[in-house]
Amino acid sequence: MPVPAWMESDRRLVERTLRRHLPRRGTVPATVRRAMTYSLFPGGKRLRPVLAIEACRVVGGRVADVLPAAAGIEMIHTYSLIHDDLPALDNDDLRRGRAASHRMFGEAMAILAGDALLTHAFEVMTFHPPGPGTDRRRLASIAAVARAAGVRGMIAGQVLDLEAEGRPFSYRQLVRIHGGKTGALIRAALEVGALLGGGRPAEVRALGDYGEGVGLAFQIVDDILDRVGSAEGLGKSVGKDRRDRKATFPALLGVPASRRRAARAADGAIRALAPFGRRAARLADLARFIVERAH
Amino acid sequence: MPVPAWMESDRRLVERTLRRHLPRRGTVPATVRRAMTYSLFPGGKRLRPVLAIEACRVVGGRVADVLPAAAGIEMIHTYSLIHDDLPALDNDDLRRGRAASHRMFGEAMAILAGDALLTHAFEVMTFHPPGPGTDRRRLASIAAVARAAGVRGMIAGQVLDLEAEGRPFSYRQLVRIHGGKTGALIRAALEVGALLGGGRPAEVRALGDYGEGVGLAFQIVDDILDRVGSAEGLGKSVGKDRRDRKATFPALLGVPASRRRAARAADGAIRALAPFGRRAARLADLARFIVERAH
Repeated sequence: MPVPAWMESDRRLVERTLRRHLPRRGTVPATVRRAMTYSLFPGGKRLRPVLAIEACRVVGGRVADVLPAAAGIEMIHTYSLIHDDLPALDNDDLRRGRAASHRMFGEAMAILAGDALLTHAFEVMTFHPPGPGTDRRRLASIAAVARAAGVRGMIAGQVLDLEAEGRPFSYRQLVRIHGGKTGALIRAALEVGALLGGGRPAEVRALGDYGEGVGLAFQIVDDILDRVGSAEGLGKSVGKDRRDRKATFPALLGVPASRRRAARAADGAIRALAPFGRRAARLADLARFIVERAH
Repeated sequence: MPVPAWMESDRRLVERTLRRHLPRRGTVPATVRRAMTYSLFPGGKRLRPVLAIEACRVVGGRVADVLPAAAGIEMIHTYSLIHDDLPALDNDDLRRGRAASHRMFGEAMAILAGDALLTHAFEVMTFHPPGPGTDRRRLASIAAVARAAGVRGMIAGQVLDLEAEGRPFSYRQLVRIHGGKTGALIRAALEVGALLGGGRPAEVRALGDYGEGVGLAFQIVDDILDRVGSAEGLGKSVGKDRRDRKATFPALLGVPASRRRAARAADGAIRALAPFGRRAARLADLARFIVERAH
């Protein structure tokens, strides 16, 4: 099943936006800029920013209004991969088939490149074409992303994952780990797209709920692909040496039950789109696409 | 020479604000919250947030309007200390006379606690008592802090510092390193205080210039105190083992010439306050206080 064409076209828009919002060559030390660029390009499917853009469209917003935030979210996702791969954390030498940042640039530079991407993301998110009410929405979007990426979201997931490693884990823990590590930022991408597109609070919530379901389905499928050894690089994958000690759905439930759990999460995501009718057809397709990958 | 009384009273205000804006116990994983708290408390003199508060007063603003940003800036300063101390960077076992975060909680948790403080800072900076025009000022203050903490400011300083280690360095490099590592965030603290206090652009710039001078004086004095072995913990200090390989003013110019350089930076800072007259008396005193410490 090929990637939907609209995703591919939005992905190209994301690439251009990321390049536009990187600090210019010569304005910052060359090494750290190289390390930031190395991890940002080529990226994967750019799932998070693509979802933010589509959420903006679903509520009838202008795509230009969401692009800086979409780029910021992808920078935050990328920083999390760099820090995740560090020797003290997942100790992965490879990322998307290439040397991980710390293998390429050394550990110190990888830490700083991650810090730089995280910090720069927030600067980029303050950019916005001026217009009535946009400042308030922009602040709300920064708060949503910081919350999702922070100690109540992504970092909570990392910490719980770290603490669960090599120990028995429950279904509840697993959902919390994945909800934090992957779910929170994906949810925020949808919310921010809806917010900056001028969506009403109920629309922001509904798209956030879709994001939560899709994020869970996505993570389960990624774990399945990782396990059956055909990861296509849509997202994170854990090094072979650590795989079996990690808390994953296939490790807990086995592959067939994990597939069913992913399908159920995708169904939930699609149901959350009901208020939008046909306008949300692409997002519904995407939820189906994610689950299909696991077969 | 004792710390000025107003600084001590503002410092207590900063402590309360930091506690108020930390994530509640039970809402986040306990270990990472403990690591965040461990590095935040007890802090040093809270120079950056105290300067932000005083800048707000100088332009006639309400202190309440600047408190969240002041807390955010201190969280960012604290994250930078945690990551600086990591084995891959300065490899310091001690920070303010206690075990560094990575010695206390392990390297993985120290990396995550730093990431968490940086991310949380931006969430906190979005908080603001509503009022006319405050959204725009808040966005500008977030942009200023992200820029100062990022790859054009603090991280640039870290990278240059890392690359200069153990090599001959020039006066110009030294100024760029310190300007990045310390100067940029101190300048931003003053600018943000002025911005959120409703200051006019010329006032924001003048206070920023003061910050740049004070930041430089502060860093030179810190290096002198570190060298003569009486660091009082106002800021960063580098482990004995690394000290001699680090790019510092006393290493390049010797102690007496470094004292003169610090005094000149403080004089420049005081001159930048001219437009404010008596309203800026405290800031002028502070610049003098910083230089006195080196004697």
